[in-house]
Amino acid sequence: MPPPLHPPLSLRLHLLLRSQTLTPLLRRGSSCDAPLCRTRRYISVRASAAQLASAGVATAQQPEGVEEAVVGFVTGKRKATEVAHAVWRNIVQKGDTVVDATCGNGNDTLALLKMVADETARGRVYGMDIQDSAIESTSSFLKMAVGDEHQGLVKLFPICHSRIEEIVPKDAPVRLVAFNLGYLPGGDKTVITVPRTTELALQAASRLLSSGGLISVLVYIGHPGGRTLNSGQMSLKKWAMVLLIFFFLIPRDELDVVESFASSLPVDTWATCKLQMINRPIAPVLILLNKK
Amino acid sequence: MPPPLHPPLSLRLHLLLRSQTLTPLLRRGSSCDAPLCRTRRYISVRASAAQLASAGVATAQQPEGVEEAVVGFVTGKRKATEVAHAVWRNIVQKGDTVVDATCGNGNDTLALLKMVADETARGRVYGMDIQDSAIESTSSFLKMAVGDEHQGLVKLFPICHSRIEEIVPKDAPVRLVAFNLGYLPGGDKTVITVPRTTELALQAASRLLSSGGLISVLVYIGHPGGRTLNSGQMSLKKWAMVLLIFFFLIPRDELDVVESFASSLPVDTWATCKLQMINRPIAPVLILLNKK
Repeated sequence: MPPPLHPPLSLRLHLLLRSQTLTPLLRRGSSCDAPLCRTRRYISVRASAAQLASAGVATAQQPEGVEEAVVGFVTGKRKATEVAHAVWRNIVQKGDTVVDATCGNGNDTLALLKMVADETARGRVYGMDIQDSAIESTSSFLKMAVGDEHQGLVKLFPICHSRIEEIVPKDAPVRLVAFNLGYLPGGDKTVITVPRTTELALQAASRLLSSGGLISVLVYIGHPGGRTLNSGQMSLKKWAMVLLIFFFLIPRDELDVVESFASSLPVDTWATCKLQMINRPIAPVLILLNKK
Repeated sequence: MPPPLHPPLSLRLHLLLRSQTLTPLLRRGSSCDAPLCRTRRYISVRASAAQLASAGVATAQQPEGVEEAVVGFVTGKRKATEVAHAVWRNIVQKGDTVVDATCGNGNDTLALLKMVADETARGRVYGMDIQDSAIESTSSFLKMAVGDEHQGLVKLFPICHSRIEEIVPKDAPVRLVAFNLGYLPGGDKTVITVPRTTELALQAASRLLSSGGLISVLVYIGHPGGRTLNSGQMSLKKWAMVLLIFFFLIPRDELDVVESFASSLPVDTWATCKLQMINRPIAPVLILLNKK
């Protein structure tokens, strides 16, 4: 079923679309070059049972701890995204301000909402995605998952992730900025994020983040733009060809951009690390940047 | 203070030296080419207070969980070796057979001993190091740390780590094989392990390991043999020069050997992953290979 063009009227989450109050903001001081902006596809506008289950909603399951997630990852039973969520839960506190820079289907947005929401209603989740449809998908998913509860805590914007600073209030200390880069799992692998705007987004996120905060980047590398070089799986000839292309024909890939940015951060104020599967070449790579 | 040539007479751990029962074993079917064998230096033959404290002995501290170790690693407060030990504690059980393939100062050997030792005395720790002095250092450290307790559970051999299969009984299912590759922390960084024998050792360890077991490799890359390429810290010219050297002059470095081996393992029977700091170029890299 094709997605509706607009979110349901009943939707009471604070969804800002182009026709609403964000428009002037979008037009003013745009640093985003449209052709470079990331584009990604949503899977559905309605939350599926699988989505809800994976977000721990339908089953009301207890959130997984870091120990279970990491040991599960090491033994091939857990995904990098589960490790990411478990680490987030150790960083994010109730009442915090957080950003989902790439909403996609809204899984991370919901996970973050559950981490910051409490009776004080001070927590905020700022969600972004360049595609209206992804924002609609996310808002529908949130509506299905939590109904009217915590309405107003989530603010969604259909803009490029490089423009975080335009949507988060300047006086709000941001505890976490989450990115999912590359193709959307289960989606069209030809629709990918773009390194140039990702670099801008990371720079903006690093400026926004408060001390003790985390930038979490999950890079899906199962596409040409995100693929990294793996010496263990390539012959000398293939290496030579790839390197030739790498140096002269193709701009830096997305993982390389993220790693380059992470490695450039000063060690006295940042701790940056990477977690990846080695014998699954297309498994996503988790990069975590902690501001000390 | 120079190390003694032999361990103290009072040492009651099961230390097998060349003059003892291992000699025939060493001479028979040697697959180790001496010049290729790893060499490394011990720091002291007596366990220092710092060593004991870091091993959780002097302070009698509670072993750290994976959650604390991983979140500490992400925030720059814990080392990769602490993550490794925390993961080991989730894999290794009392009564297991484990191998410390690179004893060094004995920190890992002691950690492993504490994981397998119980009143049944079924557990075994097989420790190896190509240098007699490292074996002496390890046995002294164990003596200092646990005295005569658990004597007979640790068996130390002054041989190359590529020869694991010669020391572990064929009928013993091995739960964990631990490697520390490269220079010894705090030691002479010009004394490093050698890729060729490490490759042989990994192959042997993978054959020995029982289902559900783990090969844990910590690669110290702060030396020429272990250094990996990091695009974020190098210009195009430096890349080109390094690649030229990489292809035509220098054999594969140690981290590359380990990653290549890990990536070659079939995904249906192995889960292999890597954890590393990004903005600390000489921080050790942790590679974990789990046999499903």
